[in-house]
Amino acid sequence: MNDERSGNVSDNDKLTIGIVLFDGFETLDVFGPVQMLGRLPKHKLVAISQTGAPVTSAQGLTTVVHHDFASAPPLHVLLVPGGMGTRTEIGNSALLKFLQRKAGEAAWIASVCTGAALLAAAGVLDGRRASTNKAAFKWVASQSDKVEWQPRARWVVDDNVLTSSGVSAGTDMALALVEQLYDRAQAEEAARVAEYVWNGDPNDDPFAVSL
Amino acid sequence: MNDERSGNVSDNDKLTIGIVLFDGFETLDVFGPVQMLGRLPKHKLVAISQTGAPVTSAQGLTTVVHHDFASAPPLHVLLVPGGMGTRTEIGNSALLKFLQRKAGEAAWIASVCTGAALLAAAGVLDGRRASTNKAAFKWVASQSDKVEWQPRARWVVDDNVLTSSGVSAGTDMALALVEQLYDRAQAEEAARVAEYVWNGDPNDDPFAVSL
Repeated sequence: MNDERSGNVSDNDKLTIGIVLFDGFETLDVFGPVQMLGRLPKHKLVAISQTGAPVTSAQGLTTVVHHDFASAPPLHVLLVPGGMGTRTEIGNSALLKFLQRKAGEAAWIASVCTGAALLAAAGVLDGRRASTNKAAFKWVASQSDKVEWQPRARWVVDDNVLTSSGVSAGTDMALALVEQLYDRAQAEEAARVAEYVWNGDPNDDPFAVSL
Repeated sequence: MNDERSGNVSDNDKLTIGIVLFDGFETLDVFGPVQMLGRLPKHKLVAISQTGAPVTSAQGLTTVVHHDFASAPPLHVLLVPGGMGTRTEIGNSALLKFLQRKAGEAAWIASVCTGAALLAAAGVLDGRRASTNKAAFKWVASQSDKVEWQPRARWVVDDNVLTSSGVSAGTDMALALVEQLYDRAQAEEAARVAEYVWNGDPNDDPFAVSL
């Protein structure tokens, strides 16, 4: 049911943005996007981990999740963070299968930082242009030679797949995702409320690498 | 014992940065600073809530805490976030007394966004220059007439007290805190690792208000 005053829909009617968490995720990979995506009129956020157990970031704070892999609802947006935990998860076939399955049903797919390594290993980025953390670029790119890896990009949009550069680039990409889901004004409003200076040009990458 | 290779000290010998959490805290107020403060060689982060129960942010994710008010260890840095939850907490005398007590023993005190309202109501900002979220400026300033409120500042440093403007300004302030605790190079390294473009001038405030 629409809330006519705000344009908001009721929680039951909201589309779901699912964030896949694992131990050793990088804090801002998750919570920059959570800030920008957490107050949208027609979307709600859910956190998901393999077993449904809480997960601890590389910076040491622990987050409770809403669902395990088995109980995760259909996702409108699948969001995958990076962090040192990806070095372990890259060998976790249950996680890679979950990403493959959820990517197949999601309208939008996004990764931050080395989260792109997990999507690539799951085959989700085959034939796509994508980017990732610049300090870990070679390791990520080594996960798949079927991806057109971009060494210079704050983030990349290829059809329904958004992949950002390292850590805080995910916040800028999340605003680009808001623009895709709604419009530019909604993205600028999310930035304004957070007093955030949006690095809004996907091609302006101060951390680009030479290959 | 020093780890001679890295300059790191063992976890037991680290100084504590305590983050006070409450329901309805604003996500990036906490996790921007957590990103920048979570990998320092001589500091560790702990999350604290009144009862020790997990707390849920305004964006809906829930964080586990390490301590309740009674068991919180001595703090080298006290960090207070903002968010809509401050409208409730401003009437929570147990919280205000905790802030007063911990501010008295901490070497450094910091707030993000409307967290300054809580510090002001606790008397911690008396006689100090301080800033806060610009959209909530009048409400925060109404909490104390003993504070020299600054309507134009990304963040303010007054002796050992740092107060930032809204939400993402806390990330910039956290890097300024790293500079105070260590040096400019350590702050720039934290920003670089996060591929973060530091808005490094405390006087450059795109969200300033006219009073």
